[in-house]
Amino acid sequence: MHKDIRGDDADSTESRGSRRKRQTREKLLQAAMELMAERGMDGVAINEITERADVGFGTFYNHFPSKEAIYAALIKQVFEDFADHIDARKQGMTDPAEILAFSIQMTLHKATTDVLWGKFLVRESMTPEALTRGLGQRLVRDVLTGVQQERFTSDDPVTSFIALSGTVIAGVMAQQMTLDANSPVHHLSSFIGGSLEGLPQRISKTALMSLGISPEQADAISSSVEDQL
Amino acid sequence: MHKDIRGDDADSTESRGSRRKRQTREKLLQAAMELMAERGMDGVAINEITERADVGFGTFYNHFPSKEAIYAALIKQVFEDFADHIDARKQGMTDPAEILAFSIQMTLHKATTDVLWGKFLVRESMTPEALTRGLGQRLVRDVLTGVQQERFTSDDPVTSFIALSGTVIAGVMAQQMTLDANSPVHHLSSFIGGSLEGLPQRISKTALMSLGISPEQADAISSSVEDQL
Repeated sequence: MHKDIRGDDADSTESRGSRRKRQTREKLLQAAMELMAERGMDGVAINEITERADVGFGTFYNHFPSKEAIYAALIKQVFEDFADHIDARKQGMTDPAEILAFSIQMTLHKATTDVLWGKFLVRESMTPEALTRGLGQRLVRDVLTGVQQERFTSDDPVTSFIALSGTVIAGVMAQQMTLDANSPVHHLSSFIGGSLEGLPQRISKTALMSLGISPEQADAISSSVEDQL
Repeated sequence: MHKDIRGDDADSTESRGSRRKRQTREKLLQAAMELMAERGMDGVAINEITERADVGFGTFYNHFPSKEAIYAALIKQVFEDFADHIDARKQGMTDPAEILAFSIQMTLHKATTDVLWGKFLVRESMTPEALTRGLGQRLVRDVLTGVQQERFTSDDPVTSFIALSGTVIAGVMAQQMTLDANSPVHHLSSFIGGSLEGLPQRISKTALMSLGISPEQADAISSSVEDQL
């Protein structure tokens, strides 16, 4: 599940010492992510991280110089490694609308299969770190490319980007709420009239429409991307 | 500034005792809002609220039976009283698109003039409380009315509602970030190319478009609403 945190499998020639060191680092990262996804960086103390990871307080400093440093490592994993993963998988796609739909659907799927990742994403999505790195930065790049190529007809790309980001994050939150049978989102969907099935595709369609893609095209692109996930 | 918290001016015949009691209640609410806007209900202890409000710990219980109760009172103020205020001001409007544009622009303006209110709104916007009460509930109502009257052409009102909510909240966050000269949002807007002026109108235009209103109409409605604020 938390492949992004644990990294690649260790080389089989890795020494016992370095394997233990790596495992401890991973435990610290996992503990910090759990705590910070709930309370943010400022709400978490280093001793809480070491307690949750079941390691001594001093051990923390063998791996990270500060709380800010472990937070930065988490941001890198959540926002950059996943964005790299998307970039690697989308090879061959050239249409900015298709690339955006693909990125959005992958993000929504990831947030469903890795709930902690999704929580962290929602919590940190509107921070300076997120806007200037990883997923946020790629989103800006893809929106700009589409506007420059006149694939997107939006005459206000700043607001389009704000709307697109907000739509994706709200989609991730709704997607997560659907996992909880008691969530008011079910009440909401039955009240509005409509299911919550297939949200990744539906969110990507709506996001494309906000950039000026026609409903028919947005629908076709989002369906074809779904098949490639 | 915090008129919603302090309530109406006291009746001049109010006794000294009841005035003091009311003032203490307001201080507790203000302190709880400041703390909970930063850390959420779970991250705040009652003694922190009483310390911030500069009253004794036991005094809290003369006003609220629990932390949940003061949180509920805040939710009522932020989400319900403001929604009532919008409802009162929009009298005479019948077009669901105009009503939505008006509500969105009022929300964005409120979040700029009362930063704490906006922070609390962002933090709590996707909670069960917000979705089923006050602003969220009115938003659902207005979207549904427009869909039923076929004013909005969206064939997926659930996703439209998610996108609309996300757009408004991201707009509030962007609007708040513009108040900070060092915010990366300025970097972002110059990178994308475009100013951050007049966001309330631009966000309401984009939100209407996500419901299937044409760009031209969405623009005209959002401009005319701006003049009525």
